[in-house]
Amino acid sequence: MTKDILPTVRTKLRRLPKRGAYDRELIYQILDEAFICHVGFVVDGQPYVIPTGYGRVGETLYLHGSAASRMLRNLAKGIDVCVTVILTDGLVLARSAFHHSMNYRSVVVLGQATVVEDKQEKLIALEALTNHIIPQRWAEVRAPNEQELKATLVLALSLVEVSAKVRTGPPVDDEEDYQLPVWAGVIPLRLAASPPVSDPRLRQEIEPPAHARNYAR
Amino acid sequence: MTKDILPTVRTKLRRLPKRGAYDRELIYQILDEAFICHVGFVVDGQPYVIPTGYGRVGETLYLHGSAASRMLRNLAKGIDVCVTVILTDGLVLARSAFHHSMNYRSVVVLGQATVVEDKQEKLIALEALTNHIIPQRWAEVRAPNEQELKATLVLALSLVEVSAKVRTGPPVDDEEDYQLPVWAGVIPLRLAASPPVSDPRLRQEIEPPAHARNYAR
Repeated sequence: MTKDILPTVRTKLRRLPKRGAYDRELIYQILDEAFICHVGFVVDGQPYVIPTGYGRVGETLYLHGSAASRMLRNLAKGIDVCVTVILTDGLVLARSAFHHSMNYRSVVVLGQATVVEDKQEKLIALEALTNHIIPQRWAEVRAPNEQELKATLVLALSLVEVSAKVRTGPPVDDEEDYQLPVWAGVIPLRLAASPPVSDPRLRQEIEPPAHARNYAR
Repeated sequence: MTKDILPTVRTKLRRLPKRGAYDRELIYQILDEAFICHVGFVVDGQPYVIPTGYGRVGETLYLHGSAASRMLRNLAKGIDVCVTVILTDGLVLARSAFHHSMNYRSVVVLGQATVVEDKQEKLIALEALTNHIIPQRWAEVRAPNEQELKATLVLALSLVEVSAKVRTGPPVDDEEDYQLPVWAGVIPLRLAASPPVSDPRLRQEIEPPAHARNYAR
C-alpha cells in the first residue's frame, strides 16, 4: 500500500504547484528508473554537490562509498542532506525563447543519513545498490569479503521528507505566437546503452550476460 | 589560450587524486557537452540541490529562471554556491561487487553568483543558454520582449574555483579475481534523442528543422 506524503514547509513547492507531487508511487518510480543522485551537504558553510549511485529498499534510500570519502564521513555525522534525482525526458522547443523548457521527472529528498552498522542490512543495501544499477548483477559476482565490507561505508536515508516534480507535454506558447512560422514541439531524450565492451583481460570463453547485452532503464 | 587552474583547498581532490583534473580545456569540454547542472545552496542551514539548464560564455557560467524562483532569489544575494555537472559515460562491471564503478566526467564549480543587470549581457547569456541546449535555436525563435526580460533573472558564476574528475577504462579487479568465471567490462551509456514530436498546434506546413531532426550531444 502506498500513501501520499504530506509536504513539509521545506518541500512544499513555491512556484508552479501543479508540477508538484507527493505521491509515493510516482516518487518510487522516478527513484527506480534513475540511478545517479546528486547529494548536497554543507561543510564550514560551503555547500557541496556530489553525484553518486544509490539503491532503494522500501522507504529507505541507501548511499555507499569508501569509508575514507569526505562526503560520506560528513553525512555520517547526521548533518542535513538534500538528495536530488532527475530524469530528463525531453527538450521542449517553443516559438519564443522565453517559453523553452524541458520535460523531466525529479525527486528531492531532505533529511539526515544514518550509518548502517548491521552486517545483514549492509549486505542488503549493497545488493540493492548493485542491482539497482545493473539488475541481476549481485548474484553473478564475488560478494564483498570482510575487509571490503569494513572499507565500505553504507548510509541510510529515510524517504520521509520527499517530493517529486514533473513536466510533460508540448510547449505552451503565448496565444499570439502560435501563428509564427517556427517549428515547435518536443525532442524526446533517453539514456541509451551501446553494446558491452569486454574487459581486455576477460577469459576468452566468457560471453556478456543478458543484463549487459540488453541493458536498458 | 587556456591555462590550468590552481586547485584551492576546497576543490583539491582528497581521494584518488589521479582522477582529478584542473585542465581548463577538459572542464569546458564537459560543461559544453552536458546541459543540466545541479545547483547546491544553503537556506537556513539546509542544503538544497536543484537541477537546471545553463550556458557558458568564456570563463562565465550563466543560470537563468523566473525572477520569482526561490533558488535564484537566494543565489542573487551572493551566497556560496556549488554547481555540479556530470556525464555518465558507462557502467563498469567488475568480477567482484566491490570493484563495480562508473565511467564519468564531472565538473564542480564553487563561488558566488552575481545578477546580470546589463541588458546586452543578459541577452548574450540567454542566447548562450538557449543555444547551449539546442544549437542554432536562438536565431529561429521570437526573442524575449521587455516584459519577459524583466521576468527573467540571469545569474553569472565565474569559472575560477573549478575542477574536473574523470574515470575511463575497464574495471580494475583484485589480481586473484581475474580467473573468476564472471563477465567483466563496460556498458557504454549515452544520452540519445528520438525523432522530434511536433506540437499538436503546429501550423501544418512547418517541418522540424535540422537542429530538432538530428539532435545529438
